[in-house]
Amino acid sequence: MRRELSINNLSTHLHAAASQLAPHLTAIRRDLHANPELAFEEHRTAGIVADELVRLGIPHRTGIGRTGVLGIIEGGLPGPTLALRADMDALPIHEETGLPFASTAAGKMHACGHDIHTVTLLGAAAILKEMAPQIAGRIVLVFQPAEETLQGAAAMIADGAAEGLDMALGFHNHPDMPVGRFSFVRGPCLAASDLFDLEIQGRSGHAAHPYAAVDPIVAAAHFVTQAQTVVSREVKPLHPAVVTIGQSAGGTTYNIIPERVHLKGTVRTLHPEARDTAEAALRRLVQGIETGMRVAARLEYRRMVPPLVNDERVVNPAVAALAAQFGAEVVQEGEPSMGSEDFSAFAERVPAFQLGIGSGAPGRQDRLHNAQYQPDEGCIPRGVEAIARIALDLLSPHA
Amino acid sequence: MRRELSINNLSTHLHAAASQLAPHLTAIRRDLHANPELAFEEHRTAGIVADELVRLGIPHRTGIGRTGVLGIIEGGLPGPTLALRADMDALPIHEETGLPFASTAAGKMHACGHDIHTVTLLGAAAILKEMAPQIAGRIVLVFQPAEETLQGAAAMIADGAAEGLDMALGFHNHPDMPVGRFSFVRGPCLAASDLFDLEIQGRSGHAAHPYAAVDPIVAAAHFVTQAQTVVSREVKPLHPAVVTIGQSAGGTTYNIIPERVHLKGTVRTLHPEARDTAEAALRRLVQGIETGMRVAARLEYRRMVPPLVNDERVVNPAVAALAAQFGAEVVQEGEPSMGSEDFSAFAERVPAFQLGIGSGAPGRQDRLHNAQYQPDEGCIPRGVEAIARIALDLLSPHA
Amino acid sequence: MRRELSINNLSTHLHAAASQLAPHLTAIRRDLHANPELAFEEHRTAGIVADELVRLGIPHRTGIGRTGVLGIIEGGLPGPTLALRADMDALPIHEETGLPFASTAAGKMHACGHDIHTVTLLGAAAILKEMAPQIAGRIVLVFQPAEETLQGAAAMIADGAAEGLDMALGFHNHPDMPVGRFSFVRGPCLAASDLFDLEIQGRSGHAAHPYAAVDPIVAAAHFVTQAQTVVSREVKPLHPAVVTIGQSAGGTTYNIIPERVHLKGTVRTLHPEARDTAEAALRRLVQGIETGMRVAARLEYRRMVPPLVNDERVVNPAVAALAAQFGAEVVQEGEPSMGSEDFSAFAERVPAFQLGIGSGAPGRQDRLHNAQYQPDEGCIPRGVEAIARIALDLLSPHA
Amino acid sequence: MRRELSINNLSTHLHAAASQLAPHLTAIRRDLHANPELAFEEHRTAGIVADELVRLGIPHRTGIGRTGVLGIIEGGLPGPTLALRADMDALPIHEETGLPFASTAAGKMHACGHDIHTVTLLGAAAILKEMAPQIAGRIVLVFQPAEETLQGAAAMIADGAAEGLDMALGFHNHPDMPVGRFSFVRGPCLAASDLFDLEIQGRSGHAAHPYAAVDPIVAAAHFVTQAQTVVSREVKPLHPAVVTIGQSAGGTTYNIIPERVHLKGTVRTLHPEARDTAEAALRRLVQGIETGMRVAARLEYRRMVPPLVNDERVVNPAVAALAAQFGAEVVQEGEPSMGSEDFSAFAERVPAFQLGIGSGAPGRQDRLHNAQYQPDEGCIPRGVEAIARIALDLLSPHA
Repeated sequence: MRRELSINNLSTHLHAAASQLAPHLTAIRRDLHANPELAFEEHRTAGIVADELVRLGIPHRTGIGRTGVLGIIEGGLPGPTLALRADMDALPIHEETGLPFASTAAGKMHACGHDIHTVTLLGAAAILKEMAPQIAGRIVLVFQPAEETLQGAAAMIADGAAEGLDMALGFHNHPDMPVGRFSFVRGPCLAASDLFDLEIQGRSGHAAHPYAAVDPIVAAAHFVTQAQTVVSREVKPLHPAVVTIGQSAGGTTYNIIPERVHLKGTVRTLHPEARDTAEAALRRLVQGIETGMRVAARLEYRRMVPPLVNDERVVNPAVAALAAQFGAEVVQEGEPSMGSEDFSAFAERVPAFQLGIGSGAPGRQDRLHNAQYQPDEGCIPRGVEAIARIALDLLSPHA
Repeated sequence: MRRELSINNLSTHLHAAASQLAPHLTAIRRDLHANPELAFEEHRTAGIVADELVRLGIPHRTGIGRTGVLGIIEGGLPGPTLALRADMDALPIHEETGLPFASTAAGKMHACGHDIHTVTLLGAAAILKEMAPQIAGRIVLVFQPAEETLQGAAAMIADGAAEGLDMALGFHNHPDMPVGRFSFVRGPCLAASDLFDLEIQGRSGHAAHPYAAVDPIVAAAHFVTQAQTVVSREVKPLHPAVVTIGQSAGGTTYNIIPERVHLKGTVRTLHPEARDTAEAALRRLVQGIETGMRVAARLEYRRMVPPLVNDERVVNPAVAALAAQFGAEVVQEGEPSMGSEDFSAFAERVPAFQLGIGSGAPGRQDRLHNAQYQPDEGCIPRGVEAIARIALDLLSPHA
Repeated sequence: MRRELSINNLSTHLHAAASQLAPHLTAIRRDLHANPELAFEEHRTAGIVADELVRLGIPHRTGIGRTGVLGIIEGGLPGPTLALRADMDALPIHEETGLPFASTAAGKMHACGHDIHTVTLLGAAAILKEMAPQIAGRIVLVFQPAEETLQGAAAMIADGAAEGLDMALGFHNHPDMPVGRFSFVRGPCLAASDLFDLEIQGRSGHAAHPYAAVDPIVAAAHFVTQAQTVVSREVKPLHPAVVTIGQSAGGTTYNIIPERVHLKGTVRTLHPEARDTAEAALRRLVQGIETGMRVAARLEYRRMVPPLVNDERVVNPAVAALAAQFGAEVVQEGEPSMGSEDFSAFAERVPAFQLGIGSGAPGRQDRLHNAQYQPDEGCIPRGVEAIARIALDLLSPHA
Repeated sequence: MRRELSINNLSTHLHAAASQLAPHLTAIRRDLHANPELAFEEHRTAGIVADELVRLGIPHRTGIGRTGVLGIIEGGLPGPTLALRADMDALPIHEETGLPFASTAAGKMHACGHDIHTVTLLGAAAILKEMAPQIAGRIVLVFQPAEETLQGAAAMIADGAAEGLDMALGFHNHPDMPVGRFSFVRGPCLAASDLFDLEIQGRSGHAAHPYAAVDPIVAAAHFVTQAQTVVSREVKPLHPAVVTIGQSAGGTTYNIIPERVHLKGTVRTLHPEARDTAEAALRRLVQGIETGMRVAARLEYRRMVPPLVNDERVVNPAVAALAAQFGAEVVQEGEPSMGSEDFSAFAERVPAFQLGIGSGAPGRQDRLHNAQYQPDEGCIPRGVEAIARIALDLLSPHA
C-alpha cells in the first residue's frame, strides 16, 4: 500500500474512510450507551461486537476472559503481531445526562467512555480489514471486559489473548483535551494498583471499662496515622506513591468497644521499588500495631495490576504516525497519573503504548466517572483514523 | 410499730413476711422473665405491676414517663416522703440460658435482672402497705421504664415523679456477691454518662488523587489519637474518667476517599469537674482537627445522666438498718464503677442511695448484660426484707 | 504519765513545752534555711542535728544512708518501736523570697520546708526524751537525707534504719492549710514513682532523603501519642495513674535526620496493679514502635519508690491523738496526690502514717517547690506538739 | 574562532590546554583544600582567586556578596552575557582522609569539592581569556561564597552579580560518576529548600499533675504525626516533596512538664505548587494544634532557595557541546534530587544549567559531605575542558 499511496494519499484515505464510518459507529455507540453492562456481564455488548466482526468478515472467538472477544486480521505480508485493545464495560453509576440515548439500566452508565472505545476499535478494524493485503503482520483485536474492576485483561490473558503478541496498542478518551488532539506519556504512565483489607481484632467490652477490653478503634487510628509515613518517609520522593484508606468500619454503637475494625485501602505506585517498599512498610506497620497495641491484625494485600509503562519502541513510531496523519501540533506529551488501567497486564508482557484521544466537547468541563459525562462523539472518527494509521505504520513493510 | 415490736421482733417479722411472699414473687418474676419488654415498651409489665398494686390496695397511676407506674403508701404518722425505685425494662440480647421460663421474645432478655427488681419492690410494697399505720411519712413506689437507655427516670421526673420527695432508695442485683450479702458505696458510685456523635466531613475523591480530596479517615484517626489525651492529660488523675469511641464508620470501598466519617462515643465521669473538662476538651480537639485538617466537623454532645452520688444521709441509716436486720458482717463497702444508671436523676434531686443486693448463684460466675445470666432467685426475699427494713427505719417515728 | 497527767493536763503540758521550744527551734530553722544542702550533701545539717541530739542526751549514729542521722529514745516501759522521720535536704531552686535568712547558696533553697521538718522532729525529740520514763516502747528518730531524689529512705534502710521498727510516723508541711490544722489520708496517699529513659535509634541521613534514613523523631512522636493510651485505655479508671514524658531530645539542626531521640519520663500510680499495667504497657508499646517503625529502642525503666500507703493501725490512733490534743475540728481528711515521697519505703515495711501539718501563712497562696515559698513558722511548735502527742499516744502503756 | 579551527581542532586544542593547566590548578586546589574556609569566611580563598585573575589579566571585583569575586572576560564579538559560576566555601566537617594536603583547619573540610569547583573555573577562565577575541559576547566569572548555607548566591545577586546576564552555567562534581563522564537533568533538578522553626509553648508543671499544666511534648508529637500528611495527602504525588523535622528539643528532666518544645525542620520541593501547598499546610496544622491542644505555637517559615530548574535553552546546546567535545556516550541524563543548591537563585533569573562532572576515583564509593571524600583530581582538567567548550559554543558567532 505504501508503494501505492503517497503519505498524503494515505492520510486522506484514512480520514475519508473514518468519516464515512462515523454515522454507523455512532449509532452502535448510542445503542451500547443506552444498554450499559458491568464487568463480566458484557454479554449483549460482546454479541454486538461479534455481529460486527462477522459482518466485516473478521474471524473471531468469543468467551475469551469470560465475556471478551478476540478478532484476527491477517496481513498480506509477513510481519509482527500487534494487539489493538478496547475495553467494553460500564460503571455502577446512575446516569444523569438526560440524553435521548441515556442509560436504560438504572445504576449503570458508560461514564468512562468504554462504549466509545468499543466502536472506535470496530471502526479501525473495518479499515484495517480492507487494507489487510498491504499489512506486514497480524492484528489481534482485543475487545476486553471488566477493565473497571482491573480483572478483564488478566482474564483474557489467562485464556491466551497475549500469546504470540509482539506489540500492543491501547487507548482512552480524554475529556480534558478537545476532539482532534492526542496525548502520550513516555515510560510509567498509570500506576500499579494494589488493594488491601486489614482486620484489626481487639476484645469487645463495655465502653465504661476499657481496661477490660482491647480497643481496636484506637489501634486502627494509630495504624492510619502511621500509614502516612509510608509515603512521607519510606518511598523515594521521586517515585510517586499513594497509600489511601478508603473505608474504616468498626463498632455499632456509643457504649460498646467493638471486637474488630475493618479497613480497606489501596496503594498506587509508578515504580516497582516504590511498590515493594510500600507493601513491606504496611506489613511491618501492621505487625508493630499488633505488638504494641495488643490487637490481632490480618492484612490481606493483593497486587491487582502493575504500572502501565509505555515503551518507546511503540510510543515513538506511534507519535510519528499521528504527526504524519494529523500534523505534529495535535500531539502533546502528558504527565503520568496515579490512576490505574489493566491494559498494563498486556504492557508488562510486550512493548505497548496507551494513546490518549481528545474527547472534550466544546464548552463542557467533563470528567470521567461522572454521572454527567458527555464525550464529543467527534472523537470516534478521529480515534478510528488514529488507531488505523498507527497500526498501519507499525506494520508497514518498511517499518 | 417500734413501740410494739422489739428490734429483734421486727427483724424476725420481716424475714418471715419476705419468705412467705417469695413463691408468689418468684412466679411473677418468671412470667416477666419469659416476656421481656424493651425500653418504653413495658406495657405488659406495667399492667402486671398495676394489677398487683390494686390487689394490695395501693393507689397508683400508670403512664408516668410513658410506661412507668407510681404507687403511694401513706404512712399513719407524719414524716418525710421516701421514693423506692425499681426499673422494669429488658435488654436487646438473645437469651441463651435454656431455662424453662427463658425469654419467649427473640432478641430480648432480662439480662440485667430488672425483673428481679420489679418483684422485689412489689414484695417490699406488700409488707410496707401492711405496716403503714406505723410508718412516719409517705412511700412513693417508682416502677420505672427505660433504664437501659438512660431515659426512663428523666421521663418519669418530667411527669412529676420526683415532686415532693425527701429521699430516694434504689437497688440493683449484684451477681458478684452471693445471696444474703449487700454492698454500698459512699459518694460517687456510678458514672455520669454522656454520648456524642461526631461527623467529620472531608471532600470525596478518587483514592489515587488525595491532593484533590480531603481525607476524613485520616482526620478521624488523628482525632481518635488526640482524644486519648483528654483522660491522660486533662482530667485530674483522682477523678476517674473514660472517653470511648465505640463506632467509627466511613467509606464504602478501597479506592474512593469518602465524603465523611461518623464516630460515636461516650464519656464517663464520677465528678462534675471531670465531666466539664472532658466535654470542653473534646469540643476543643474537634475544632483543632477542623482547623488543622481542612475538614468540617459537627459534634453533637449529649449529657445523658449525671453521676449517681450516694448521700451519707441515706447511706448511713440504710447501712445501719441492714446491719440491724441481717448483722453487720453481710454489709460490705464496694467501689464505684464507671457504669451508669439513671437513678442518678433522682439522686441529683434528693438525698439518695443505691443499694447492692447479692444475687450470685453458687458455682456460677455470672455477669450482667450476658446472655447466660441466671441470678439466684433467693435474692428476691432477701431484697424484699432489706428494702422494707431500710424504708421502715428511714421513716421510723424515732428516726 | 497517763497515770499522772489527766488528758487535759497532757495537752496543756505539750502545748506549753512546744511553745517554749519555739524560739530555739526557729533559730535553728533559719540557720538551716540560710544554708541549704542538696541530696546527700547534708553534712552541715546533719552536724547541727547531731549536736542537738548530744545536747538533749539522745544517743545517735551519723552516716546512716550517707548523710542521715539516727537517734534513739528508750522508753521507760516495754513496748513497740516507733520511727519518727524527718527529711533534711533542699532543692536546686534559686530562692527569691528576699527574707533576711534567705538562702546564701546560689541555686539551692529549702523550698519544700524540710528545714521545718528537721527542727520539728528535734523539738518533738526534746519533749519525748524528757518524758521517756513514761513511754512504753522505743522511739527511733530518723533524720533522712535525699528525699527530693527519692533515694534517702532507701539508703538509710540499706544501713539498717528500718530494723526492729513496729510503726513509723512521717509528716509534711502543707501551705494550703493554715497553721493549726492537720490532714490525713486513709490508704494510698502518695504515688509510686517510676522513671524511664527511652532511647529510640534510627539511622541518620540528610533531611532531603528520608528514604535513605530511618527517622527517629517521627518514631518518637508516634510513641508519645501511643503512650497516652496507657492511662486512657489500659489502667483501670478507678486507679489514678499518670504517664508523663518530661524530656524529648533529638537532632541538632534543620536538615539532618538524627541518629537517635532520647525521651525521659515518669509513671505515677497509687495501686500496684496500675503500676504493673503501666510498666508492661510501655514496654509493649516500645516493642511495637521498634517492629513497626524500623527503629531500635532501649527502654530503661526504674521503679523508684512504692506508693505511700497509710495504715489504719497508725492513722486511727494518730487522728484520735490529734483530736485529743487540739480538738477534732482541726483534723481533716484530705485526698491522695500523684506526687511521691520516699517515706513510702518505710511504709511498705511497717504500718505507717504521713501526717499533713498546716503551714500556710495568712494572706499568702504558697506552693511547695516554689522560689517564693514562705511557710508560717508557727507551724513548728504546732508540729512539735502534734508529733509528740501522737508518739505518746501510740506508745502509751494503755494503747 | 570557529572559522579558524575545525571542530576537531577545537576539541583537540581545549583538551591540550586543559591538560597543560592541570598541574597548576591541582596545586592551587591542594592549597585551598589544606586551608578550607566556611561560608562568608572565604577571605584567603578569594584572595587566591583574585591573584590568579590578575595574573590572567582578567579584570575583577572582590567583596561582591561579602567574600565573592566577580571577573569579566569581554569577547571580541558582540553577543550575550554568560555567567560561569563556581562556589568556594567548605563545610564544618572534620577531615579524616589522611591526605598529605588534608585540611589544617580543625573541624573544617572541603568535603563537597568546592575547592575543585574554584580551580575548574580558574582553568576555564584561563582558556577563555586567551580565546576571547573569537567569543561573541561576554563571560562573567562568578566565584561565590556560602553555598552550603544557601546564602552566597543571594548575597552576590544583591550586590549586582546577576545584572545584565543572559544565561548562566553552574557545575558540581559527582563522585558517583567516574572522571570523564557528565550528567544533566532537564527541568527541575534540585529542590527548593525552606527551613522552619516551630516553638510550641504549653504551661510548665509537675509531671505528676498534668491537669494543672499544658504538655507541649504531647502537642509536638501530634504535630509531627500530622505533618506527615502534608506529603502523604496534600501534595500532588507527581510533585516530589519532603517535610523533615530534624530537631525536637523540649524539657530537661523526668518529672517536669516543660514550658515549650522547639522543632526545626526543612521542606524540599521541586515544583512551586508543591512548595506553596506544603507551606500552607504546615501553617494550617500548626493552627490546628494550637486550637486543639491548648498550646501557643510560633512558626517561623523561611524560604531559602527556589528549585533549581535547568532551562532547555542552555541544556540542549550544552549537551551538544559536550557531545562534540567528548563524544555523546559520556553524557548521561540523570534524575532530579531533593538536595538543594543556591545556584537556583541565578537560574530563577536567567536561563541556566547546572552540569554534573564525574569525579569518582576508581575503587572508591565516595559520597559528598563525608569526612573521607577524595575526588579524583582528574576531574579538574576534564571540567575545565567541558566548561570552556560549553561557553565557547554558547557564545559562538554561529550559535
